[in-house]
Amino acid sequence: MAVTKRTPLPVAEAVNKILNHTRLWGIEKISINECDNRILAEDLTATHDVPPFNRSPYDGFAIRSEDTKHASLDHPITLNVVETIGAGQVAEHEVKSGMAVRIMTGAKIPEGADAVIMLELVKERVADNKNQIIIKRSVKKDENISFQGEDTQEGTLLVKAGTKITPGIVAILATFGYHRISVYKQPVVGILSTGTELLDVNEELQPGKIRNSNAYMCAAQVRAMGAKIKLYQHREDNFDSLYKNIKEALQETDVLITTGGVSVGDYDFLPEIYKKLGAEVLFNKVAMRPGSVTTVAVYEDKWLFGLSGNPSACFVGAELFVRPVILKGMSVLKPHCKVTKALLSKDFPKPNPFTRFVRAILSEDIDGNVVTPAGLDKSSSVSSLIEANCLIVLPGGTRGWETGSEVGVITWHGEGSEWPWDHPLFSKSSAIKTVEKQR
Amino acid sequence: MAVTKRTPLPVAEAVNKILNHTRLWGIEKISINECDNRILAEDLTATHDVPPFNRSPYDGFAIRSEDTKHASLDHPITLNVVETIGAGQVAEHEVKSGMAVRIMTGAKIPEGADAVIMLELVKERVADNKNQIIIKRSVKKDENISFQGEDTQEGTLLVKAGTKITPGIVAILATFGYHRISVYKQPVVGILSTGTELLDVNEELQPGKIRNSNAYMCAAQVRAMGAKIKLYQHREDNFDSLYKNIKEALQETDVLITTGGVSVGDYDFLPEIYKKLGAEVLFNKVAMRPGSVTTVAVYEDKWLFGLSGNPSACFVGAELFVRPVILKGMSVLKPHCKVTKALLSKDFPKPNPFTRFVRAILSEDIDGNVVTPAGLDKSSSVSSLIEANCLIVLPGGTRGWETGSEVGVITWHGEGSEWPWDHPLFSKSSAIKTVEKQR
Repeated sequence: MAVTKRTPLPVAEAVNKILNHTRLWGIEKISINECDNRILAEDLTATHDVPPFNRSPYDGFAIRSEDTKHASLDHPITLNVVETIGAGQVAEHEVKSGMAVRIMTGAKIPEGADAVIMLELVKERVADNKNQIIIKRSVKKDENISFQGEDTQEGTLLVKAGTKITPGIVAILATFGYHRISVYKQPVVGILSTGTELLDVNEELQPGKIRNSNAYMCAAQVRAMGAKIKLYQHREDNFDSLYKNIKEALQETDVLITTGGVSVGDYDFLPEIYKKLGAEVLFNKVAMRPGSVTTVAVYEDKWLFGLSGNPSACFVGAELFVRPVILKGMSVLKPHCKVTKALLSKDFPKPNPFTRFVRAILSEDIDGNVVTPAGLDKSSSVSSLIEANCLIVLPGGTRGWETGSEVGVITWHGEGSEWPWDHPLFSKSSAIKTVEKQR
Repeated sequence: MAVTKRTPLPVAEAVNKILNHTRLWGIEKISINECDNRILAEDLTATHDVPPFNRSPYDGFAIRSEDTKHASLDHPITLNVVETIGAGQVAEHEVKSGMAVRIMTGAKIPEGADAVIMLELVKERVADNKNQIIIKRSVKKDENISFQGEDTQEGTLLVKAGTKITPGIVAILATFGYHRISVYKQPVVGILSTGTELLDVNEELQPGKIRNSNAYMCAAQVRAMGAKIKLYQHREDNFDSLYKNIKEALQETDVLITTGGVSVGDYDFLPEIYKKLGAEVLFNKVAMRPGSVTTVAVYEDKWLFGLSGNPSACFVGAELFVRPVILKGMSVLKPHCKVTKALLSKDFPKPNPFTRFVRAILSEDIDGNVVTPAGLDKSSSVSSLIEANCLIVLPGGTRGWETGSEVGVITWHGEGSEWPWDHPLFSKSSAIKTVEKQR
């Protein structure tokens, strides 16, 4: 097979090409009991005021404030307690002059009452077979009343479509009676590893072979992004059977990720398979390390991601390119990894002809974020993925970095970002300046 | 019912009382396909070297370096290509003097070869019906060989028990053949809301009533901590039936969370229920807002959490007290919320007689972390939970906080902490100092 000349695309341009092709995954209704981390496909509005009625924030007595106008230590006043209501109960009596209703936290303020006096501020007694309270201070109108709508008014927009459902949002769903919820469907992402060297995880090692780790890792990444996984049996490097496997897998998936076979070696058949399929290749080389051979193609309404067979390159490819396809398809406002900055805790002497993504451990110390490259920076390294919780992004065209340099970092944890690639620390000019400043 | 005097315990002491009673949840074996976010119950060690054999990091030709000792532009040398191997294939020939094997990335270095020259550095030709390469430079011994064990050596401890399984760790599991994995069992956490005011999420509003949001919210929180949920029908405030419901629920759960009924009102039956059960109450008042009436008890080997019926208090109680019980039971090294510091973006004028937990939004700007209180700070407020991603922790005995003050913040996202409560920003003395510094 001829070695084809490929033009490397800057990362931001590659991602942009992808964004131009994303489509929505559709909507489904699910139960509140199964909506954790799903993405809302409808705006949530308050279907009633909160509180829905005037209520008592304390245990106490609902009274008419004017009855207490002249109450004092020297001139206590006495009210007759006509009934007791707990939360969820509604008073039978209207509170008239001289009357009080014993009321518990959360209960509805009875008709006629315009204030609540707390339990500990009254003296209770029984006189003439009547329950009475003695009050030695005046109580202001509206005192200790939580008013209808003071937290939230009916019709208020509370949560926008495209938001991930957190426990706090589950509370909103329950409060306002959303027991079935419109959420975006989860796309079906197929994962098919290629490579004659691959064994399955339950197979014994054989000479020249390694176990397939990419498929399982990538599946875990993509499940964390909120998609469903269809894991295919890994396949040998054989053009005809691979073509058939991929064509079949495309029938039952929205996105098909392959790992391996995407470079320019004798057994790298993916480029030819894209051609035979008639898929539109958006790019087949990215100005990045690892994963420069990452290829993305579209075929009818399906996506084809040709990730590198190297575990670290595969990991980076999924976070950079697969993530926005899945999340933009659910209208998520921040479909990309989040950017932050940190001080480099170790020298990183390698030159970076392309943008380099270094697996690293981001932590916080007294002075802020610190980032440490995780293990070996070889694209074949598996052990460096163990503790890595971020990727240091070193701009292409830089020569190496010293301890204490400020670097940009992307993480796949948390809320994501709208567009990370404009960050000033990701450009060469700011990078060089920063390094000089440190010297 | 008499108003009982309760002694408020500082938060750290309350958590400590809980930690003294935690137990392990036991171990089970699960498939690599269902292990996302589960907690390892075994150490992971490398079951073989990585790479497991000397291999080629590039597409090229495996050769004997001594054959090229005198090669140069003027004196090129010629080698016969005896075969081609891809990754996963093993060469049939030993490489002898004058021979080369065409080799693809990841393939095992053939016997006899001690270096690889990259594809682009040779000229290929066919002469005398033989495939040949012409080399115009000398190649050093060991050049372009990834050596067996250079990434990881067999027997190396890679991941410790008690670690959460991330996609990177899934890659390790697959690489080393861990297809069934020992993980900690997920405890069964029952949630039973109490309150005559409660309606279910699918019911229409009625006067004096509100929908039960606590149970659904708390279920989502506890699922995110890694436990299984058993959601019970909410119950009215009735001592006898509540006692029966709770006693039954304890038969089928490891942890039973109730919401509401835990204070000192006329319909707060939980304190009496703990007494009748014979449960050991670890504490029934905590020096915190919201949630001061939070009660934790143990009964045989079961846990009883009596959380407040106020949504925000309930939320805080689950993160502070339920979290460590679930996670310590899985040997997680950082079973508590994570601490970070941030600058307050708004005045918070309220005095804090007790430690106050303010629901807030933590974000990052150019100068570091900034935190903004979310919505109303009322313990009944539901809307303040929508965007909150952290809790500001304001030490008890402080008088109010100004914009720009440095405050301690705890979050339930990410990796957690070993023990957050010693943080200097959580103590009154440092707090006052910090505020003065800002003036």
